[in-house]
Amino acid sequence: MDNKIKVAITQGDTNGIGYEIILKAFANNDLFDICTPVIYGSEKVMVQHRKKLGLNTAFRVVPDAESTSDNHLNLINVVGDGIDPEVVFGKTTEEGGRMALLSLEAATRDAREGKVDAIVTCPINLAAMPKKEFPFTSQNEYLGSRLGGEALMLLCNPYMRVALATNHQTLATVTEAITPELLEQRIRQAYRSVERDFLCAAPRVAVLGINPHASSNGLIGTEEAEVLSPVIAKLAEEGVRVFGPYAADGFFGAGLYKHFDCVLAMFHDQGVTPFKALSMDEGTNFTAGIDVVCTSPDHGPAYDIAGKNEASELSFLHAIYNAVDIVRHRETFDESHANPLQHIVQRDRREERRPKREE
Amino acid sequence: MDNKIKVAITQGDTNGIGYEIILKAFANNDLFDICTPVIYGSEKVMVQHRKKLGLNTAFRVVPDAESTSDNHLNLINVVGDGIDPEVVFGKTTEEGGRMALLSLEAATRDAREGKVDAIVTCPINLAAMPKKEFPFTSQNEYLGSRLGGEALMLLCNPYMRVALATNHQTLATVTEAITPELLEQRIRQAYRSVERDFLCAAPRVAVLGINPHASSNGLIGTEEAEVLSPVIAKLAEEGVRVFGPYAADGFFGAGLYKHFDCVLAMFHDQGVTPFKALSMDEGTNFTAGIDVVCTSPDHGPAYDIAGKNEASELSFLHAIYNAVDIVRHRETFDESHANPLQHIVQRDRREERRPKREE
Repeated sequence: MDNKIKVAITQGDTNGIGYEIILKAFANNDLFDICTPVIYGSEKVMVQHRKKLGLNTAFRVVPDAESTSDNHLNLINVVGDGIDPEVVFGKTTEEGGRMALLSLEAATRDAREGKVDAIVTCPINLAAMPKKEFPFTSQNEYLGSRLGGEALMLLCNPYMRVALATNHQTLATVTEAITPELLEQRIRQAYRSVERDFLCAAPRVAVLGINPHASSNGLIGTEEAEVLSPVIAKLAEEGVRVFGPYAADGFFGAGLYKHFDCVLAMFHDQGVTPFKALSMDEGTNFTAGIDVVCTSPDHGPAYDIAGKNEASELSFLHAIYNAVDIVRHRETFDESHANPLQHIVQRDRREERRPKREE
Repeated sequence: MDNKIKVAITQGDTNGIGYEIILKAFANNDLFDICTPVIYGSEKVMVQHRKKLGLNTAFRVVPDAESTSDNHLNLINVVGDGIDPEVVFGKTTEEGGRMALLSLEAATRDAREGKVDAIVTCPINLAAMPKKEFPFTSQNEYLGSRLGGEALMLLCNPYMRVALATNHQTLATVTEAITPELLEQRIRQAYRSVERDFLCAAPRVAVLGINPHASSNGLIGTEEAEVLSPVIAKLAEEGVRVFGPYAADGFFGAGLYKHFDCVLAMFHDQGVTPFKALSMDEGTNFTAGIDVVCTSPDHGPAYDIAGKNEASELSFLHAIYNAVDIVRHRETFDESHANPLQHIVQRDRREERRPKREE
């Protein structure tokens, strides 16, 4: 009976630490209890990484996502037979980016067709990605464009969740980008995500200010009074439990994030920097708001340590745990909302009541 | 012999936790080993706080800074005899702000005249400050305007120092404010401060990027390539050990701040937020770049807990320790540079070789 969560793993930039964290994560059999992994990659690239790193984690090549076997690390070749990709550890090469894209394309295609339940993406090197086929500044945006829905970057670790109202855009354009419409959309997305993806009943969302000290009552900017507060008030009146705007420095300094199910930061460095400062290898990057569950570790391809067997697989492990949890949570949430009389029970990752996959 | 560092302490907003942290810090005699404290405040306000909090720390009223006595908590009344200020715990009142301003005015006057060695400021409530006399968004700026020099806000805790290229200004104006001239000035100020104020020989300064991921090689903005990198390269050629620009999230996430004597953040939330997230009560706000040593705890007047005996004096204690250290360091640095043959020796806070104060 095939009732394990099937997790597609993209190889990411092949000159980075993607294969290393995969090999380390599956060095023992623990993860097979909660998922069936399938790498969208290249056997030839895998062999080069195993050799260089001296890691002998077992894997088996399968022709497609229907042919995976449980309790094994499966690998689908996404490059043609004649092609012999060369790994250049720690260097930006065109091929490293092309490999990453081929993997993303194949994994998202299978996800759209329901052949896998979730995608965990290994880190890419933006500078190596083919500009024409990948006109994005993050994998989150790519995934949003391929998988339906509106992507919201949401970082989570065991202590907090931080979502971003704006993401990879220049600092100079942030303030004008935060319109009432965008803010309302982002708050609703964050609220919906913690409700359905993390099964928080009656969630509480905190909104950070745009300006220093959330403008200090209008002394440093008007956006808090003119944009943020009205949107927060409007949604609060609807029953959405949303609070703020809070000064970002005091919010993280006083540990206020502990009192909320999600923090909505207004821009990249305001949210990601304190999150990573406090995360210590446990952070996961989750692309909320789209139809397929997609997570990734919260680090880059780490060229400086590529091929040196120094990478930690911890963040990648958390990305897998989170992906599996979120798939289960969505099922539970959707089931309980289809039949409102049924009580919501948060299930254990390993429990066996999940219906058989229909393939 | 009077060779203790004389530290002026401003009372801050009298409806906040300023007096509470003072009373707790001087509840025992330890601090008298390293400094002679003198509060610029009000006996009547002090009495109200002591009573409300149930704290019985001893203090003595003195007429002026020349009349302080060692081993005592001295207090100079900065309000006229006829005035009877009322403390309204946790509320914004005009009087709370006026009290804070009177204290700042008296302390900076005495500092300019060399009657005190350093100023430690208790937190103010910006909204309560008289706009006309205090047209600033922080005490740092006020101190800069009164004490000579160009203020640079520099946060420090036992693990890191973070300086700000821009501070209390709207997010929308940050990018255009960071000109090559400003950046060069800020780097030089930060470098000079860690050298002279913290006695770091051959310091290393890290510069963060303006845009997310420090623009990802130009994919998210041009300021890194057009402004930051040229200024860094120019100064590096001069022998200034300055590095970057670094992506803020990865910089704090990977703990890179451990490898630098100072981190120059480009804007408030980029630097202050991760600093406070990682500080846990040990952070000090130091106004570098000005002629008098000025520090403050890194928290606000905390109206939510004012009068409840719940405030922690830890950050205030660190502000005093830092003020005393920096006064000593400047003396050592200036002495050794006046006579280059003398070896720089970092002295203990308690050592007794400091020359007698000339009064």
